[in-house]
Amino acid sequence: MDRVAIIGASMTQFGQRDAWIRELLAEAGQAALADAEVSPDEIEHLYVSNMASGEFEGQTGVPNALAHDLAAMPAYTARIDQTSSSGGAGVYAAWQSVASGASDMTMLVGGEKMTHRSTAEATDVIASLTHPVEYKHGVTLPSFAGLTARLYLDTYDAPRESLGRVAVKNHKNGLDNPHAQFRKEVDLETVLDSPIVADPLRLYDFCPITDGSAALVFCPESVAREYTDEYVVVSGIGGATDTHVVHERADPTTMGGVVNSSEIAYEMADLEPDDIDVAELHDMFTILEFLQSEDLGFFEKGEGWKAVEEGVTDRDGELPINTSGGLKSKGHPLGASGVAQVYEIYKQLIGDAGDRQVDADVGLACNVGGFGNCVTTTIMESR
Amino acid sequence: MDRVAIIGASMTQFGQRDAWIRELLAEAGQAALADAEVSPDEIEHLYVSNMASGEFEGQTGVPNALAHDLAAMPAYTARIDQTSSSGGAGVYAAWQSVASGASDMTMLVGGEKMTHRSTAEATDVIASLTHPVEYKHGVTLPSFAGLTARLYLDTYDAPRESLGRVAVKNHKNGLDNPHAQFRKEVDLETVLDSPIVADPLRLYDFCPITDGSAALVFCPESVAREYTDEYVVVSGIGGATDTHVVHERADPTTMGGVVNSSEIAYEMADLEPDDIDVAELHDMFTILEFLQSEDLGFFEKGEGWKAVEEGVTDRDGELPINTSGGLKSKGHPLGASGVAQVYEIYKQLIGDAGDRQVDADVGLACNVGGFGNCVTTTIMESR
Repeated sequence: MDRVAIIGASMTQFGQRDAWIRELLAEAGQAALADAEVSPDEIEHLYVSNMASGEFEGQTGVPNALAHDLAAMPAYTARIDQTSSSGGAGVYAAWQSVASGASDMTMLVGGEKMTHRSTAEATDVIASLTHPVEYKHGVTLPSFAGLTARLYLDTYDAPRESLGRVAVKNHKNGLDNPHAQFRKEVDLETVLDSPIVADPLRLYDFCPITDGSAALVFCPESVAREYTDEYVVVSGIGGATDTHVVHERADPTTMGGVVNSSEIAYEMADLEPDDIDVAELHDMFTILEFLQSEDLGFFEKGEGWKAVEEGVTDRDGELPINTSGGLKSKGHPLGASGVAQVYEIYKQLIGDAGDRQVDADVGLACNVGGFGNCVTTTIMESR
Repeated sequence: MDRVAIIGASMTQFGQRDAWIRELLAEAGQAALADAEVSPDEIEHLYVSNMASGEFEGQTGVPNALAHDLAAMPAYTARIDQTSSSGGAGVYAAWQSVASGASDMTMLVGGEKMTHRSTAEATDVIASLTHPVEYKHGVTLPSFAGLTARLYLDTYDAPRESLGRVAVKNHKNGLDNPHAQFRKEVDLETVLDSPIVADPLRLYDFCPITDGSAALVFCPESVAREYTDEYVVVSGIGGATDTHVVHERADPTTMGGVVNSSEIAYEMADLEPDDIDVAELHDMFTILEFLQSEDLGFFEKGEGWKAVEEGVTDRDGELPINTSGGLKSKGHPLGASGVAQVYEIYKQLIGDAGDRQVDADVGLACNVGGFGNCVTTTIMESR
């Protein structure tokens, strides 16, 4: 069977951008076309991953706008929304469009424009994804994170400092990412002394509100070979839901969507957790990096924190995690984040990650929607 | 190759519903599971087609809510938005999920809850899909329809009455559709004497604002045979864009997205327009039924109006169009409409369309997003 390849990628500067969603999407789209050396009229399907351009900006129909702005008509286009994992869902949609034979050249552009709204307004839009019962009682995603972090620390006898080390590591990685929102090293004291947001989590345990976009170009491997020697193959991909209501989970320190989506992806790729050389995890909150690193099978349950403490997940460790700086330092423009994760793995696997480069043939990206409500896991391999 | 089959379908009562989007989606989803005799834990992918639950209702993350409400976890889920053709885009996504091998049992539920907002508010949300230049000058979709209708009547020497006959025909068909919003026959005089909305179009040239949902169950044909003898096959499907800015079209009486998406669908199905026995077209405005019937190749350019005048598209005509009553009488809950079109064709092809039944082995559904900005065309055949 002809596998699905990625032959080009781009991401814009993440941060506070003086540009609307249409402009951000077009910027990444044009850059990815240039990177892949594909002309717009070769694009057959064009997907946009975006959570809430209507709510944030009063603009809907952005896929049509993008087809127009890239001169990609009559390419088919649609928007894929899976809240904060819209990017991963877009990767899945793009993969399906090629694997099904519907398209021999698919572009995915993920993006979000958020910083023109206050943090409270943005948090409110994001909180609208929760169950109405949770939402009306004022439970937002940061508060879930605080509750989960407390439970994790208590259950697995982990020190508060270990969470801080996730922030320290990812900020350090972000220093070498020219697209990152924060290129600023932070020390453990700074994290631990920052203002409390949702006890025990503090300001530096949270990713920022971000504008930005990222893009990928997919095609069958047989077509990829005609374009470039520098491509990667999506060898495994899967998605899965967990309960919409967080309190219904038997163990809130286990993310069922991560477990189930990665099982599908590992099986498709015929790989095991030990085979992964580098990974991008969804560290919207520091605690989530622990949970995912365990639920993906990298470490035993309750031991993810030890791996971070011991430097296993550092850039020069055995399993580098979030070499891009993660959502923590790179930023989290909702619809772009899952696309930017795959961008980072693509760059690592083709050996074009600059100062962030690690030695890797197999990479994994895990994109988490809501508070683990829906997750996509993507495994990529060097050709 | 294993073709993609539809083994079950449902639609809710369309109209003004005292239910929120979550409830509408769950209602159709449960009914489709029952119709297909599939249990929720068999669902592997669950797609929701919906344009604007966030804007209309302040609720996002509805696919996760639906997975929860149907007890379909850990099924993967995502929302597909292509504005007023979200339903058709959902059909395409569901088809791809099965054709790619990612899912052996996919449910699509399309829905929209709109009537709690005023017509002006709803029109404003829909108009946010247009190009910002158009939007800021107050051009809404109804005004485009008026301009296009005037151009069509002038260019092709068609009488104003011919547009009215679309409304008369579709209202007549809707009489026999228990799910239709308006089960009410109207005569030509009523249409022609109704209040002007966008000259030359009057109130009865427009579809209403509607609440409702519809659902379909897809699987490989080899799996379908294990469940039922009553299934249809999606033998052709395609999507295509036209310009985002309507005034950039060389000929606004031709819908490029209809032309291009149907070419892809006909080629995949190895069929021609003459092979189609029954069709559901996107008559959001009466004029659109003329344009689509021509751009799909059923009639020569500028002659679609004659076919309606001559009764060719009546239920007992040579090519029945909108046996369901169309968007005009059935209603147009944005994300549901494209799904309900396929529901109607499915019912016609399995011989379960009740008083609306026509003799048909091959059917086509054409779902139009925006003012033709993006279109999906789906061709189905009896097994």
